[in-house]
Amino acid sequence: MSLFRLDASILPSTSSSRALADLVEEQWTTAHPDAGVHRRDLTVDPIPATAWQNAVLGGFTPEADRTPEQREAIALRTAIADELVDAEALLFAVPLYNFGVSQHFKLWFDLAYTDPRIDPQGTALRGKPATLVTVLGGNYSPGSPKEGWDHSTGWLRRVLEDVWGLDLRVVQRPFTLVGVNPALDDFADIAASLKEEAETGARRSGRELAELRGAHPAA
Amino acid sequence: MSLFRLDASILPSTSSSRALADLVEEQWTTAHPDAGVHRRDLTVDPIPATAWQNAVLGGFTPEADRTPEQREAIALRTAIADELVDAEALLFAVPLYNFGVSQHFKLWFDLAYTDPRIDPQGTALRGKPATLVTVLGGNYSPGSPKEGWDHSTGWLRRVLEDVWGLDLRVVQRPFTLVGVNPALDDFADIAASLKEEAETGARRSGRELAELRGAHPAA
Repeated sequence: MSLFRLDASILPSTSSSRALADLVEEQWTTAHPDAGVHRRDLTVDPIPATAWQNAVLGGFTPEADRTPEQREAIALRTAIADELVDAEALLFAVPLYNFGVSQHFKLWFDLAYTDPRIDPQGTALRGKPATLVTVLGGNYSPGSPKEGWDHSTGWLRRVLEDVWGLDLRVVQRPFTLVGVNPALDDFADIAASLKEEAETGARRSGRELAELRGAHPAA
Repeated sequence: MSLFRLDASILPSTSSSRALADLVEEQWTTAHPDAGVHRRDLTVDPIPATAWQNAVLGGFTPEADRTPEQREAIALRTAIADELVDAEALLFAVPLYNFGVSQHFKLWFDLAYTDPRIDPQGTALRGKPATLVTVLGGNYSPGSPKEGWDHSTGWLRRVLEDVWGLDLRVVQRPFTLVGVNPALDDFADIAASLKEEAETGARRSGRELAELRGAHPAA
């Protein structure tokens, strides 16, 4: 029983999503120093690109007839689902990439979603407290020129809230490329304020996860 | 110079997206029997899950200092971009998976999008004739209970039309799980009519691609 944390940034050393997730985690470990944090990092420990197909095909195949690749994929998805089912609270740090969903997160979700406990019929995650931290290089808020170009957050909410039924908090930090891309230098002030807002939200959500410890039936 | 075709279904032998794309391709080959079709299949020949990170990191690294993995990833992305740049017309067959974008297509796009000819500054694909064939297990049309749950087509259009600037046709077939999932048996008639409509659209778009041959400056 612990906090489960998933990271999906492909640039760990300069990751804005990790920095925000650290703030969430800090609140958890401060409140529950002995509860522990279990991590999975999709860049440091990548899931093979063929894992999902193999798990799906293995699911259609009687156990005795499965190929070694299918067995391996099913064992991995069971380990991944165990992490979610066993945890008291969940933390996902997922950047927007190229206006869409992180390919690594989608692969991880597709694979996890083949486990009978958390597949379309599974209910093991309903009501579990969770935080999604997501970061966007640009600003896609209403009224901005790129409004509607964030095709990631909507899907992430869809599967985490509507499909798995998590009790989800979302912390979003836009404009992370301000200070990196000189074309965005004019937005320094608004970017700084959005960063501060996101950091406050991250700490708040971490406190909420910590306070909810023990409230979920699976805890 | 030819038609480039990309397939992303993880179940090739029963794939609805392939069947639809076959109809597009048929029109091309009937009109131009000697023009050829160049294929890439993301399931038969999977892109490694680490290719994109390695191409990105390799791009930040002087050529002489790149790791073997970075060189390999950059060579692959160049081959992938060559296929797009060299083709006269493009055909993409991409299913919706778990309410979102095919992980394999996203990996392929992310990787291709690091090539300088077709990256955020690249313009090599602008105006190139293309068809996107996409299939959905359920029905997500306005007024249906799952309206808004298709988080794939919007992003696909975004990157193919708005980012790469393709002259894009979209052929969508919903309700492919009718006849497979017994819970959807009541929708047999509407599914049959949607299938026919998509098939007609696929043939039409194939004729259009064939007619546009030679019209694009890159052809």
